[in-house]
Amino acid sequence: MRKGYFITLEGPDGAGKTTQLARLLAAAAEAGVPVVTTREPGGTAVGDAVRGILLDPQYGEIVPLTEALLYAASRAQLVQEVIKPALTAGKLVLCDRFIDSSLAYQVYGGGLDFDFVWRTNLAAVDGCLPDKTFVLNIEPQVGLARRGAAAADRMEQKPLAFHQRVQQGFLQLAERFPERLTVVEADRPADEVFAEIWRQAAPHVAALR
Amino acid sequence: MRKGYFITLEGPDGAGKTTQLARLLAAAAEAGVPVVTTREPGGTAVGDAVRGILLDPQYGEIVPLTEALLYAASRAQLVQEVIKPALTAGKLVLCDRFIDSSLAYQVYGGGLDFDFVWRTNLAAVDGCLPDKTFVLNIEPQVGLARRGAAAADRMEQKPLAFHQRVQQGFLQLAERFPERLTVVEADRPADEVFAEIWRQAAPHVAALR
Repeated sequence: MRKGYFITLEGPDGAGKTTQLARLLAAAAEAGVPVVTTREPGGTAVGDAVRGILLDPQYGEIVPLTEALLYAASRAQLVQEVIKPALTAGKLVLCDRFIDSSLAYQVYGGGLDFDFVWRTNLAAVDGCLPDKTFVLNIEPQVGLARRGAAAADRMEQKPLAFHQRVQQGFLQLAERFPERLTVVEADRPADEVFAEIWRQAAPHVAALR
Repeated sequence: MRKGYFITLEGPDGAGKTTQLARLLAAAAEAGVPVVTTREPGGTAVGDAVRGILLDPQYGEIVPLTEALLYAASRAQLVQEVIKPALTAGKLVLCDRFIDSSLAYQVYGGGLDFDFVWRTNLAAVDGCLPDKTFVLNIEPQVGLARRGAAAADRMEQKPLAFHQRVQQGFLQLAERFPERLTVVEADRPADEVFAEIWRQAAPHVAALR
């Protein structure tokens, strides 16, 4: 029944995911393709409430298991409420972070068991894996500097070593799932980054017209 | 390292869990045993925030997968923050609802896959299963009438057939885990119910003195 196309953008904080998502949206709209954009955690009323818990420093030390399960919970709601209906309707779905962020942050960054996080999330997404995932690769020092330290959320407050494990985690995921994940070097002008993404995405987007 | 004793109370809404937990607490305190009481969902700052999402009708239809993952997330935090430290310190831990509620409500009531919910929660509790679980058995009509319809939360608003599946689910869990779960008929005076619980719990509680 699935007729749409599902693209996710992944990578460390400050890699430029939001910028590239906006460009993809604009390009798809220009091509006359119906698009739904969303983000994680959040994207639904329940997910936004979960996002509030996850990113608010007031909750102190959320244990890694809890964190992973909260992300999976938010994801399950997003899939059923937003992503699946849009794909069934033949739309392009663009999502800022998805299942690979759980693996990069909770497994490679946080030390949780790969199989536990993978299996839990496979169940959470109910068969709805992305068709294509672009990993925007950037050194965490560069990415975090781009974001600025002003309004650091709970995730960005973690030590640099954590963010380095996350970056390496994304690269290892790209080796593990070479069909689905494509690494795009992100420490260069946004136009160049987008050109590389669009070259690969355009044929699939055009097919939805 | 675990030296305490972990008791959970389970059963349909209105079965008298809160009353029996208070009596267990009083009896244990009288016996000079250090006790920690807690409840699910909630029991931690993160868990209380998750409880707020789960029980608030404003969030509308939370899909069953999301619901199960939110309960598991709250549980993981409660185990690491409250239950494990208390057990390590040799205390009696009394918990109002725990892993069996997820099985009864999400699997038997909500139709989720038993193995998914069981495996996810086994990981969430990180080896910390109850030593003894008392299932307070009551017909849902009787239990819900006891509670009154005035302030029904999202769970209590579900149709009667759901609550009947939940009740039957608890009884099936008792057959599946006969060592850990004990069914106590709860549609009788609280004194009688407590006498039956205390007869089985007292030796274990006394051992913590």
